[in-house]
Amino acid sequence: MPEELTLRPFFWRATRLFPEQVVVSRTHEGQTEYTYADFGDRVRRLAGALEALGVGHGDRVGTLGWNTHRHFEAYYAVPLIGAQLHTVNLLLHDDHVAHIVEDAADDVLIVDRDAVDTVERLWDRFDGVEAVIVMGETVPETERDLPLSSYEQLVADHEPKGSWPSLSEDDPAGMCYTSGTTGKPKGVEYTHKMIYAHAMMVMTPSALNIAQDDVVMPVVPMFHVNSWEFPYAVTMAGAKQVYPGPSPDPSDLVDLIEAENVTLTAGVPTVWIDVLDHIDREGGDLSSLDRIVVGGSAAPKEVMRRYADEHGVTIEHAWGMTETMSIGSVAHPKASIDAGREETLNVRVKQGLLSPGLEMRVVGDDGDPVPWDGEAVGELLVRGPTVVERYYDRPESNRAEFVEAEDGGARWLRTGDIATVDERGYIEVVDRVKDVIKSGGEWISSIELENALMAHEDVAEAVVIAAEHDRWQERPLAFVVPKSDAELDVESLRRALAEEFPRWWLPDDVRFRESIPKTATGKFDKKTLREAVDDPELPYAPGEDR
Amino acid sequence: MPEELTLRPFFWRATRLFPEQVVVSRTHEGQTEYTYADFGDRVRRLAGALEALGVGHGDRVGTLGWNTHRHFEAYYAVPLIGAQLHTVNLLLHDDHVAHIVEDAADDVLIVDRDAVDTVERLWDRFDGVEAVIVMGETVPETERDLPLSSYEQLVADHEPKGSWPSLSEDDPAGMCYTSGTTGKPKGVEYTHKMIYAHAMMVMTPSALNIAQDDVVMPVVPMFHVNSWEFPYAVTMAGAKQVYPGPSPDPSDLVDLIEAENVTLTAGVPTVWIDVLDHIDREGGDLSSLDRIVVGGSAAPKEVMRRYADEHGVTIEHAWGMTETMSIGSVAHPKASIDAGREETLNVRVKQGLLSPGLEMRVVGDDGDPVPWDGEAVGELLVRGPTVVERYYDRPESNRAEFVEAEDGGARWLRTGDIATVDERGYIEVVDRVKDVIKSGGEWISSIELENALMAHEDVAEAVVIAAEHDRWQERPLAFVVPKSDAELDVESLRRALAEEFPRWWLPDDVRFRESIPKTATGKFDKKTLREAVDDPELPYAPGEDR
Repeated sequence: MPEELTLRPFFWRATRLFPEQVVVSRTHEGQTEYTYADFGDRVRRLAGALEALGVGHGDRVGTLGWNTHRHFEAYYAVPLIGAQLHTVNLLLHDDHVAHIVEDAADDVLIVDRDAVDTVERLWDRFDGVEAVIVMGETVPETERDLPLSSYEQLVADHEPKGSWPSLSEDDPAGMCYTSGTTGKPKGVEYTHKMIYAHAMMVMTPSALNIAQDDVVMPVVPMFHVNSWEFPYAVTMAGAKQVYPGPSPDPSDLVDLIEAENVTLTAGVPTVWIDVLDHIDREGGDLSSLDRIVVGGSAAPKEVMRRYADEHGVTIEHAWGMTETMSIGSVAHPKASIDAGREETLNVRVKQGLLSPGLEMRVVGDDGDPVPWDGEAVGELLVRGPTVVERYYDRPESNRAEFVEAEDGGARWLRTGDIATVDERGYIEVVDRVKDVIKSGGEWISSIELENALMAHEDVAEAVVIAAEHDRWQERPLAFVVPKSDAELDVESLRRALAEEFPRWWLPDDVRFRESIPKTATGKFDKKTLREAVDDPELPYAPGEDR
Repeated sequence: MPEELTLRPFFWRATRLFPEQVVVSRTHEGQTEYTYADFGDRVRRLAGALEALGVGHGDRVGTLGWNTHRHFEAYYAVPLIGAQLHTVNLLLHDDHVAHIVEDAADDVLIVDRDAVDTVERLWDRFDGVEAVIVMGETVPETERDLPLSSYEQLVADHEPKGSWPSLSEDDPAGMCYTSGTTGKPKGVEYTHKMIYAHAMMVMTPSALNIAQDDVVMPVVPMFHVNSWEFPYAVTMAGAKQVYPGPSPDPSDLVDLIEAENVTLTAGVPTVWIDVLDHIDREGGDLSSLDRIVVGGSAAPKEVMRRYADEHGVTIEHAWGMTETMSIGSVAHPKASIDAGREETLNVRVKQGLLSPGLEMRVVGDDGDPVPWDGEAVGELLVRGPTVVERYYDRPESNRAEFVEAEDGGARWLRTGDIATVDERGYIEVVDRVKDVIKSGGEWISSIELENALMAHEDVAEAVVIAAEHDRWQERPLAFVVPKSDAELDVESLRRALAEEFPRWWLPDDVRFRESIPKTATGKFDKKTLREAVDDPELPYAPGEDR
């Protein structure tokens, strides 16, 4: 058989064909810059150090880190020696971090300075962890006696590993936990082959079109679905990379875009809303920037319009999830859509066309496909070489969240997303299965209501949840953060929504808040809101005459 | 495990997401146009017809066809039912066609009208062939009683096949024979996985950057390394395709480019030299055209310059071979080459940077790597998921033409190409191992001499071969076709070459010819020339004082 699909050629191509290419990184110690040749040398040294610590084929190395060059190095050193890189979200609360490290049975941790406190607090629950590498020149003082070593010391002390061991494409190379809005986080494993297939797909113009002359800054965290695979795809492309470091704020991001001539960046919508606000107040030059890939949740159309009009930047809407290794669709307008600016924007606000290599179905409650007419809704099912077919050690979820295929293909993943598909094949996610509001046998999309509320000139943030209701089972309840100085009331908001939606869709109440709780990945935390609202009063619930 | 890498998602994506996209095709019957939806229906019908003829998993279907929509349909129908598409070069002489069909043991043939005569002549040697499908509305009269059926009749008579069988990514999907300058042609098999990996790689900007809004006309024949995978990659991208049909001449190509707004096309250099000549004489508008991918042999720099200057078209040099599924490198200038037009052209004339997923070595006679300095020459070795690791049923070649890897990776393919690699990683093929002229222990590149001769204003074509020599083992001997009306002599050509090369590189004689024999794939036929020149007189052979 020809060569297996592993990460080795990624490393080979970057370090041999583009040794002069540059990687910029912000860390706690300041900003550094080095070449792919330096990167290669340090990856080989880190690999040597890991092997000296006893890490080998089949072991798991957990990371708790920001987007830095050191984390980037671990992305290669760990899988290239046959071990598995398990990226842990360092913003999760203790209980989840402990659960995730225990569940994955990590052997070694590579952690940011910021995460040493967490490690110390949770140390009694980290049974299998034999060593902790702190990404920095030095190791912070701790009260407990922990097996800490300095990343830089290890890299300095070890010779570069000369050649890589034989790897199977089916060897696990990565692992991420889904943050999970219900139950404990579940592990998702990525093999070398899956990363290879996803990175190549991401590089194509049908997905993100990553070219050698791009300058790419992944803002989406490296603990979040491998930073949407950017550290793999961009390296293979031989492009310049910019890692924005620990908790970058909008001014850090704008500074880096300006200084490094970033052409492509990526992250969740809230980041880019904050950047826009920052530029409104402080100014900022985005002229090098060509496009921003936005996923995780939908970007408001108005934000997309402002980036295009005011900065010449295209917001590229993407859809994906941990189980699809991030990017699963991108909203490029087809060549056949010979449309003006507004129609193009109407396409770009959707979740887009499924990426090459994937297949999808949208099915109703009965499991049968719904028509692609832009109206009919159903649950989105996907499968492909970059879609997992099971969770790590979760037989129950593996039964519930996958559907056997009726043809010769793999099982379908139930995405939990409620979507329509239009005649041209564009997916539009209208809700999460668990967020859709089931009112009297009909479905009301919480997301559509939220988008309409957020389009209101006086609304800063809005979220709509399903409140339990004796008669209708569920009814929409909105939470709204008004813009500062704005005066809002329930009636006027309901009147505004009534121009777009049938009366029975209108929220039965609107609660005004100063802020809305968010999850660790920056999404509205509907679970917390739902738990906080027990049997609410709903003054505007529909009467008998509906 | 997640979904295997098969052709099913190619077909799914094209027919479901881009049903409105257009395929244009020239056939003997004229020009036709249909949509991807029509394509999908006809592929399903052809699949049904093939199954009715008894074709199933593991069977081989040979094709002898031009670049048409029907051949394109066979590219999908055959592998999607688990059979193997074996594309046969219909320009080969009888003995090779017979050998190839016998060697592969094809079960069914799908042939162009043009090839029915060949089939009839060779029928006694086609032992295993049970049915012959003629790509047309009708079946031509034959003297012998052959099991012919009409492609269109079959497609009309069979219901579309509903769902595809379960396929393994390791199932053979394609097969091509290398034309082989020595010995009989050897078979190379492509699995579903290899085609998947190659097509995705080809789509990336690091390779050919195939986008949905491209209009792609593959001129490279569909019997030649799967038309460099265009029928797979372009379909996955959802782009418009133009198939130029039986033996298109330059005016056909220019007409199609103009009428269909072709943006990307591909073929061997001679095609594009002829197109340029045609436009010089007859005019022609290439304004829609963005780039031409050229491979098979090197395009003269002057031709590249003229396309750029006169037509705004980039010639993208690519390198590859049957054993690498075509495209293995492309000569894109790196972003770091901040160069003017001339330096960019100097990069573009090379064979380029190895494509994502591949690894290479260039080794001297001793098997050790030579430095990447743009000077040192050696044989190019490659490996990767799109490089075969063996020939079909050729244990001897499998020992001779592959080198065991010293690390954990797959065996290296000996490409037979002599190359230099410069400091920036660009490959330049300077000769074939078998064409390099070994003179007194030193190597003389026949290709460099040919390029210099062809750059001469009075030379139309030139080829340089190794002539046997008692003292120097081999010496260069040139064959030159002068431009019409030009007067050329040996001395003036040697003087011109002496400005560029050391004296001992100069050809010991130049033979003037009206034409130079070519192989079936349009390359200079050095084998025939060598055989025709037995112990030649070499008036300018170097004396004792070299």
